This record gives sequence, structure tokens and C-alpha cells, in this order.
Amino acid sequence: MRIDIITVLPQLLDSPFAHSILKRAQSKGLAEIVVHNLRDYSGNKHKTVDDYPYGGGSGMVMMIEPFVLCIEKLKAERDYDEIIFMTPDGEVLNQGICNQLSTQKNLIILCGHYKGIDNRIRENFVTREISIGDYVLSGGELPAAILVDAVIRLIPGVLSDETSALSDSFQGDLLDAPVYTRPAEFRGWKVPDILLSGNTPEIEKWRYEQSVERTQKRRPDLLED
Amino acid sequence: MRIDIITVLPQLLDSPFAHSILKRAQSKGLAEIVVHNLRDYSGNKHKTVDDYPYGGGSGMVMMIEPFVLCIEKLKAERDYDEIIFMTPDGEVLNQGICNQLSTQKNLIILCGHYKGIDNRIRENFVTREISIGDYVLSGGELPAAILVDAVIRLIPGVLSDETSALSDSFQGDLLDAPVYTRPAEFRGWKVPDILLSGNTPEIEKWRYEQSVERTQKRRPDLLED
Repeated sequence: MRIDIITVLPQLLDSPFAHSILKRAQSKGLAEIVVHNLRDYSGNKHKTVDDYPYGGGSGMVMMIEPFVLCIEKLKAERDYDEIIFMTPDGEVLNQGICNQLSTQKNLIILCGHYKGIDNRIRENFVTREISIGDYVLSGGELPAAILVDAVIRLIPGVLSDETSALSDSFQGDLLDAPVYTRPAEFRGWKVPDILLSGNTPEIEKWRYEQSVERTQKRRPDLLED
Repeated sequence: MRIDIITVLPQLLDSPFAHSILKRAQSKGLAEIVVHNLRDYSGNKHKTVDDYPYGGGSGMVMMIEPFVLCIEKLKAERDYDEIIFMTPDGEVLNQGICNQLSTQKNLIILCGHYKGIDNRIRENFVTREISIGDYVLSGGELPAAILVDAVIRLIPGVLSDETSALSDSFQGDLLDAPVYTRPAEFRGWKVPDILLSGNTPEIEKWRYEQSVERTQKRRPDLLED
């Protein structure tokens, strides 16, 4: 899978993509993540990529031309399955969307900044608009990193332990059961006896009950569907 | 405001905190973000911070002691309003939580990794558990960066244009109206005439109608409350 990210702040993405599973996925050849500096496509010597909004108001708006020039260059090189714009008014990301995107071959992700991007980019180029949640951030770079992390880890071979991804929260409709590791007692706080019993069927039953209980208590909405 | 982040992958957070508004907030003295390497508190020469889960199963679990030692060191230095654990089964982050946290003085954020953290940390130290959305990520570092970005930008003086944060999506119950900037025509795609009219009351009316329409179409749930 190849993911091209277009941003005015490419440096912000340096460290997230240089560590952990994103690094591993790239070094294994399972994913290629290419970050493009929007200013390289500004078409003017000051490398301006934003301007005042038509109709007045606060904040700056990102111009159409730099995005279009970068998108067209990429599209001339290969076919893309989706051109995704990270925006708080997009469809809210969930595990189903991540699963689906993880089967795609080539994606472009556009990061907005300032007050937003010229709406003509959204009308004429963007195929999918995604929000990572109902809160406002200073730009689309961290949301792009979130999307890439959530998607790349689902590609077969990226995680060292395949069963680990399948047993995550949200892959079923239940939250995870609580987990514990050594020591069995720390300052008087003990691990539940059942987990030390070695009785695997009873442990599985306990974990299932804990998952149901935790889901009912914390996220009853997940059980409604 | 001071935010302490405890993580096994401090390097992952280097670039997000070194750019954009997070950098500006720190250089203006409005926010201090300190990242702690959990391995410095491992208490053993191999700097191990994880171990196998009691009761069996895939994935590793982060041990209680390193987190406790780091938290206790910080708490001895100052009082903290919240000790937040980033986890997919926490309360789902929204703008209201961000607004509320932006008024706090000192926060600790714990980043999980692998299969999770020893549940005794959650039971005995964590005061608030927050999820950034219903999807699984490889660790709590990017969610911590998201939370920090969403909160810090709300501190008065961080954004250069105060009205900009107030007019964002989710600060009212409506999504933003579409925005446009120069040129007025690009490859035949025109900016709506109304925005070029100079008639401010009519422009405000159009924007409000667009906001309502976009919210009804994309996020009718925001209008229900």
C-alpha cells in the first residue's frame, strides 16, 4: 500500500512515521508513506499557499492551485483509490472504515490548516472526507498520522502477532477485558485470582464477562446495533 | 498549563510538539509540555517495562511499577488536576472535554502500548480515561498529541486570532460553512457570487444557511441535543 500525504507542515510528520509499526511496515516493504510539501506546488516565488477568505471573516484559507498541481502530478504517476480530506465535518472514523481502507492500494490524504481549504478542492477532487472525532485541531497532520497508523497496522504482516490485531477493542463489538502482568502483588494490590489459576476455560469465561460488563458500563451504544 | 506525558516511545512525539501552535504556545510561555521516557523508571538493568499477560493470551502488558515510580516523582513536585490514560475504551473525546481541560493547571497523560497497561494503574492512579475515537491504534502517543493539540489551542493567547477558535466547528452546534479564496475562477470553477458581493449581512445569512444545511446533511446527530 502507498499513501501520499500533502501538507504545508511536512516536518510535523517526521517522527510519527519514523518509529514503531509505521517504521516497521515501511522497512518490511508493506507500506510506503510519502509526504509532500504543499509549498513546492505554490507556483509563486513567496511559496504562498493561503489567502484571505472571500466574503470576509477571520482565518486564512488554503488555495486551490497548489493542491491541484500536486494531486495531478501524483495521479499522472499511478491510480488512486481515494483522495481523502481530513476535516472535522467529514464522516467520523471508525474501525470499519479502517478495515476497508486497509485493503486499498494507493491513497492520497490532504491535510488542511488554518480556516480550511478552498471548497472547490473538496467539490472537484476529494472522494472521501474523514474526521477522527468531534473536536477541533490546529491542522490535518495529526489526524492524517492517526488514519495512517490505524490503517497500516491492519495490513497482514505488519504486526508481529497476527492474533493481536484481531482481538483488539472494536474488532468485535466488545471492549477488551482488563489485563495484568507481574508482579502478582504490588503494594497490596493483587491480580485477580482467576488469572493465576491456570484454568484456561474459566479464564476465558471471566474475560468474556469482564468485556461484556465493561462495554455495558462504558459504551452501551456499542451493544445496541 | 503544564502537561507531562509518560511514554515508552518519547521520540515519536518529537516533531508534533516542535511545530505549529504547540511550539508557539511553549515559546510564549503559555504551555509547558514535558515528555518522560517510561524506561527511565523500569527499575531493572534491561529497562524492561512490559511482561506477559497473566492468564495467557497474545500481546504484552505494560508493568505497574515504572508508571507508579514516574507518577509519584511528578506528584511530589506539584499537584495535578488529572491523570489521564489514553485508551480506546475511555470516554470519547469531544470539544466540551477539551474546553474543560484547557482551564486546568497541571495534567499527566499516560500512553499505553502493546496490549494495554496493568489494570491496577487504572484502578489506583488514573483519574480520567479518554479515547479519541472508535478505532485501534498502535499506541497512546498520537492520541496524546491529539489531546494536547486540541486543549492547548484553546488557552487564551495561543492562537493569534482569538475569534478564530471561537468560530470553529463544534464550538457552536453547527459545522462550518464552505470557504473560498482567490482566484475567483480556476479552470471554470467559480466562487459563489454571494461571497464576491460585498453585502456582509447577506453573506452572513448565506453562511448560516450553508452551516445548517451541511450539518443536517452530514451530522444530523449534532442538531438533536
